[in-house]
Amino acid sequence: MKRPGCWKMLTVAMCMAFVACLQAQELQGHVSIILLGATGDLAKKYLWQGLFQLYLDEVGKGYSFSFHGAALTSTKQGQEIITKVLESLSCPEDVAPGRCAQLRGQFQQLSQYHHLRTSEDYMALSKDIEAQLEHEGLREAGRVFYFSVPPFAYADIARSINSSCRPGPGAWLRVVLEKPFGHDHLSAQQLATELGSFFREEEMYRVDHYLGKQAVAQILPFRDQNRKALDGLWNRHHVERVEIIMKETVDAEGRTSFYEEYGVIRDVLQNHLTEVLTLVAMELPDNVSSPEAVLQRKLQAFRALRGLQKGSAVLGQYQAYGEQVRREQQKPASFHSLTPTFAGILVHVDNLRWEGVPFFLMSGKALDERVGYVRILFRNQAYCAQNEKRWVADQSQCLPRQIVFYIGHGELGSPAVLVSRNLFRPSLPSERWKEVEGRPGLHLFGRPLSDYYAYSPVREQDAYSVLISHIFHGRKDSFITTENLLASWVFWTPLLDSLAHEVPRLYLGGAESGHLLDFELSGTQLRFSRPQLEQLVPGPGSAPKPSDFQVLRTKYRESPLISAWPEELIAQLAADIEAAAVRAVRRSGEFHLALSGGSSPVPLLQQLATRHYGLPWAHTHLWLVDERCVPLRDPESNFQGLQAHLLQHVRVPHYNVHPMPVHLHQRLCAEEDRGAQMYASEISALVADSSFDLVLLGMGTDGHTASLFPQSPTGLEGTQPVVLTRSPSKPHQRMSLSLPLINRARKVAVLVMGRLKREITMLVSRVGHEPKKWPISGVLPSSGQLVWYMDYEAFLG
Amino acid sequence: MKRPGCWKMLTVAMCMAFVACLQAQELQGHVSIILLGATGDLAKKYLWQGLFQLYLDEVGKGYSFSFHGAALTSTKQGQEIITKVLESLSCPEDVAPGRCAQLRGQFQQLSQYHHLRTSEDYMALSKDIEAQLEHEGLREAGRVFYFSVPPFAYADIARSINSSCRPGPGAWLRVVLEKPFGHDHLSAQQLATELGSFFREEEMYRVDHYLGKQAVAQILPFRDQNRKALDGLWNRHHVERVEIIMKETVDAEGRTSFYEEYGVIRDVLQNHLTEVLTLVAMELPDNVSSPEAVLQRKLQAFRALRGLQKGSAVLGQYQAYGEQVRREQQKPASFHSLTPTFAGILVHVDNLRWEGVPFFLMSGKALDERVGYVRILFRNQAYCAQNEKRWVADQSQCLPRQIVFYIGHGELGSPAVLVSRNLFRPSLPSERWKEVEGRPGLHLFGRPLSDYYAYSPVREQDAYSVLISHIFHGRKDSFITTENLLASWVFWTPLLDSLAHEVPRLYLGGAESGHLLDFELSGTQLRFSRPQLEQLVPGPGSAPKPSDFQVLRTKYRESPLISAWPEELIAQLAADIEAAAVRAVRRSGEFHLALSGGSSPVPLLQQLATRHYGLPWAHTHLWLVDERCVPLRDPESNFQGLQAHLLQHVRVPHYNVHPMPVHLHQRLCAEEDRGAQMYASEISALVADSSFDLVLLGMGTDGHTASLFPQSPTGLEGTQPVVLTRSPSKPHQRMSLSLPLINRARKVAVLVMGRLKREITMLVSRVGHEPKKWPISGVLPSSGQLVWYMDYEAFLG
Repeated sequence: MKRPGCWKMLTVAMCMAFVACLQAQELQGHVSIILLGATGDLAKKYLWQGLFQLYLDEVGKGYSFSFHGAALTSTKQGQEIITKVLESLSCPEDVAPGRCAQLRGQFQQLSQYHHLRTSEDYMALSKDIEAQLEHEGLREAGRVFYFSVPPFAYADIARSINSSCRPGPGAWLRVVLEKPFGHDHLSAQQLATELGSFFREEEMYRVDHYLGKQAVAQILPFRDQNRKALDGLWNRHHVERVEIIMKETVDAEGRTSFYEEYGVIRDVLQNHLTEVLTLVAMELPDNVSSPEAVLQRKLQAFRALRGLQKGSAVLGQYQAYGEQVRREQQKPASFHSLTPTFAGILVHVDNLRWEGVPFFLMSGKALDERVGYVRILFRNQAYCAQNEKRWVADQSQCLPRQIVFYIGHGELGSPAVLVSRNLFRPSLPSERWKEVEGRPGLHLFGRPLSDYYAYSPVREQDAYSVLISHIFHGRKDSFITTENLLASWVFWTPLLDSLAHEVPRLYLGGAESGHLLDFELSGTQLRFSRPQLEQLVPGPGSAPKPSDFQVLRTKYRESPLISAWPEELIAQLAADIEAAAVRAVRRSGEFHLALSGGSSPVPLLQQLATRHYGLPWAHTHLWLVDERCVPLRDPESNFQGLQAHLLQHVRVPHYNVHPMPVHLHQRLCAEEDRGAQMYASEISALVADSSFDLVLLGMGTDGHTASLFPQSPTGLEGTQPVVLTRSPSKPHQRMSLSLPLINRARKVAVLVMGRLKREITMLVSRVGHEPKKWPISGVLPSSGQLVWYMDYEAFLG
Repeated sequence: MKRPGCWKMLTVAMCMAFVACLQAQELQGHVSIILLGATGDLAKKYLWQGLFQLYLDEVGKGYSFSFHGAALTSTKQGQEIITKVLESLSCPEDVAPGRCAQLRGQFQQLSQYHHLRTSEDYMALSKDIEAQLEHEGLREAGRVFYFSVPPFAYADIARSINSSCRPGPGAWLRVVLEKPFGHDHLSAQQLATELGSFFREEEMYRVDHYLGKQAVAQILPFRDQNRKALDGLWNRHHVERVEIIMKETVDAEGRTSFYEEYGVIRDVLQNHLTEVLTLVAMELPDNVSSPEAVLQRKLQAFRALRGLQKGSAVLGQYQAYGEQVRREQQKPASFHSLTPTFAGILVHVDNLRWEGVPFFLMSGKALDERVGYVRILFRNQAYCAQNEKRWVADQSQCLPRQIVFYIGHGELGSPAVLVSRNLFRPSLPSERWKEVEGRPGLHLFGRPLSDYYAYSPVREQDAYSVLISHIFHGRKDSFITTENLLASWVFWTPLLDSLAHEVPRLYLGGAESGHLLDFELSGTQLRFSRPQLEQLVPGPGSAPKPSDFQVLRTKYRESPLISAWPEELIAQLAADIEAAAVRAVRRSGEFHLALSGGSSPVPLLQQLATRHYGLPWAHTHLWLVDERCVPLRDPESNFQGLQAHLLQHVRVPHYNVHPMPVHLHQRLCAEEDRGAQMYASEISALVADSSFDLVLLGMGTDGHTASLFPQSPTGLEGTQPVVLTRSPSKPHQRMSLSLPLINRARKVAVLVMGRLKREITMLVSRVGHEPKKWPISGVLPSSGQLVWYMDYEAFLG
């Protein structure tokens, strides 16, 4: 890199500044700020202004500065661009124009442009800085490298900085990184590992500019300063829902090459809205200004998030997007993008504070308004004895109660914190937040503005200015640590994978979209409230839907077979179980149900847990068909699945639940502990005639059922009701009901689902009674009934 | 009784009618309707009109009628009253005035007055009827006796009817009873038993006139005819709350002698609102027109109701009531009535359909409006992507969704069924219900009327007319059976008892009451939303309130003592348990908590279940301090209490819950089953050093603790960690942790509450280490901490 001509000029300027703050500089030292990508859009729009604001805030407070714009742009062109940008910098309203011009002049003189490309360029930059320091007799305090460049450039730059441009001993290095931080968990991890080989964790400042938004930055302090009022409110007993929303009116035109790769979830939800989510959901640390304590609570919140599934999301794409992509990226007319430009996501935080409270995250482009907010709506717990016409806003507990962190734009037009007057008068730091003046006629979230205690910032600040100031002051709590980043990707990546081939709903955009993008909870899933009226543009084909077929009833191995699409099949099986339970309880006062482990029964358990009110749970005994020889608390234990998907949701008395005793005397399935015999005698003591009312089985691709595998020396015949067996797959040791015991049941249901079962289903349909080869063929209740439940994929392929 | 002079006149009239409908009469026979209390208010206001309506509806359809007004009023005076009442009877709008006069004339001629007092009078009446039947050659179809008399007169009348006035063979008897049906469960049962000795169940028609209200009568048919739409909605996943409301503007003036004895709960809630509650909450039978099926479902609903406690209610009394009582009943100025004229009640239906859904019942006199309704409000499960200004009523799922059975009066002024347009278009029988015409400007339940599908009756019918018709047609489903009645009293009586000395909040009445009567859920309790602003009239003294005192910290038996009012004491103990749990989990990954049985810990368990999100339940092991030797499912089992109040609400893994093995091999606490030793080895295997993190104990009035009673040969010393003991009270056999094991704990908390413990508290404060005499004095952790938690009543007396 050539030494730019500005050096001499700079020196003169520095000397001027030097005189002004000699003493302070001696105390604190010099800070060099290198803005990489200094000629790019983000830099032009926000970052230079942010650096200028930093200068305004800090000048005369003990540091000296130099600002180094750097880019791949040629020196001349770069200098021109920078000069133009610097001339347009503005001061806050309270700075007089003359003073502002003076300060801008000083800033310009401290700033220069570098063409930075090779490692040598970085070395030269470092030398420049050192020379300057020496020349001016300054002590180096630190260097900031602000990466406003595409992520593919990160590694090279990082390597160069690390090898050639680190500050001298005793001075700090801060590198500032802009999203995207990867495309999924794997790429984010790779990127993190790579950067980690050049920088220490405390040197890295990952920007999520949402954390610099004043209303977002106020969430934790608000929760802290209003602990007393919020203590009893901030939980599932009082919060009805949380909405975390970022709506845009702009579309992706001109940016489709970026957008096609990312889409709305990676662009907005994985980062901005997730950060807001953790700030709302996390347990409040005692000290909210300790970045380490906050990080630990955030990570704890991430761990409590319920995994997302395809059904957790609804996706949309504005109608014009496809054409924009085809035009901007020269795609053929046949090209249809599946990239979502709108997403609604249902998040559940599975801990005792938030269990059952829906968190709705939503963002989209080409919507009817630009606005961002997080809204905590409290339940109405009151009944108001007077006619609603007489309700008074600050007294009636029947009017909506909500706390809104209004991030910006929208009808209010500025950041704000809103608290319904019937909740409490919040405490906010008055030097930074002032009450909003009345705006007659303005309604927000169903109520007039006058129904809220409403506060807006005394001085509105741009997010980047806030964050640049925090970088300078080393306030790491406004930035995304590696752990935080990876936790977020761990959460989002499975959803992104499962949605990869999902066709988004098309919407017209703006107000034209009407109610088409409204979405709602349906059981544990999210769905659009209204059906798609018409396919605006045909999507790339769609699979047949469950409603296209009826439930099929036929025979299989001479027993009744019920076949349907998975959802209907599970509904049918659950209904049959309920009917059996009702009959059994009517007959004997009890219902003995033996359930198999594994993943197939999970949707069934969920269905039973949430849809079957008539099921007499208080009189139901739950038994295990088989168990893996692991401690019950092991995630591999079949009992764990039963606990997670059923027991936590229904009221089966403790003593009606019968886990298999695979773990006795701190050993697993030791013959001499006689666990199998214990289980058999428990069954014999409680189940009349050892005849279960219903046994639910599955079928493996090798024809095994329960934990009875082909060629098993035990359990396929003989008198032992419960046996120890060996599985070909890990964990090998198992405990299982035997075929003779299973065949005593009043009803046996075999549930078979998925394409992988197609072959064994075909095979077993043709074999006779050969339990040694195919244990499932030995299932034949002696006086009870056998019913097969197979989904179409297993049965019809 | 003298034969009244009207007989001849009546005969003439009957002959006229006879000719008109000879054939039909031959088919169906004659019905005699005897209205007892015919000159009373209810009869004058509703019953005669109801009988006339019956005549209008049924004349010419095959029956002949005679109507017998009866009372204690003298014959002459009674006849005069009746004549006047009959002259004022009105016809429905669609009957021409001339025709109406004609029909009224016929009705008058079929009606007569009887002075009925003695058994002989009844015999004479019966003879009259028989003579008439014979004279006219009529077959008797049946007799209706309508008791519009005070309940104290029931027994005599019933005896007379039974002995002297039953219809002839083959004809039916129907006796119609008006509330109040008793004053509490006991009196209702006595009354029912008494009536049951005279009448068969199917002969009795207990009137709750609410069941004759058209909107109430429509609830079950509506649920039935809209099964498809309601099937997925009518449950806890979708219903946010149910409000069952009857507001009156009138006060009790002129009726205070009745009202003082009953109050609003007995007058309105125990009957009218409870009936509505069961109609909404019950499982729908397959056949809603089968009275037997409906009754069974109702009784099932009653069984699912969670017991009411003092905290389930808020009570009020309008300010003028006291003065009205003193004036009307000549009470001295010092007399203060505690009778509530307003009540808000929180009801929970503890089954899987309704668990967690609050049912608010409310009724009061001297309120701001007269209106009755039941309102089912559904949860908002949707997020609407557009700005609220663009929401369309029948499309937006974010606007309130509700179904209202509008019983009458109020702003709408007529009965109605309202269904939000964003729910579904309901099906109602069009011959009886028509769509309500638009009423611009009318808002109901937060939304304009136009937001609802709204239906009102084609022909508005008075409740008594409806019920009299149902009596005539033998439709028992509109009446309260004995079982139904007693179930309702079983539900209400404990609350009435517990509220007997409660001071109701005074309210001004009308719109003046403002928000003073608003109430809300607070945990599991109900409370007024606003504090009482000032005592309008001083009530009869009030106990000191918890806030009058601070938590007291001192020493007891040389260990720390914490004393407070119960609520604060429990809060403190719960907070201490949480802190101990957090510490233990941080230290060892587990928290081992041993809990005592009995009723004292119940509020503690509730507090832990609902307020302690920070408690690491997933890592907590629950142990029993002691257990009664009964099966675990026995209501007396300590484990049952733990299950009901704690385990159902938190997520302790199944395998972390350790009930005592008091029931082995179908025997209870048999020495040779070695249950105590089993428990000891379970403890030794799981609890490091057999040292519980926290043991919660109580103290009996005899100084016992755990199940270690004075002079116990086991458990007070020695090496056995768990022992079998004998209690002086039933059930005698117990299993208990021993003192030596308890004393190994890291912390022991002893909770002592209530005035009854005052004496033993005093005594134990003075004794030394004498566990044989006072086992509690042997509690002294060897290296752990002992803390006493006593409420003021136990500690200060």
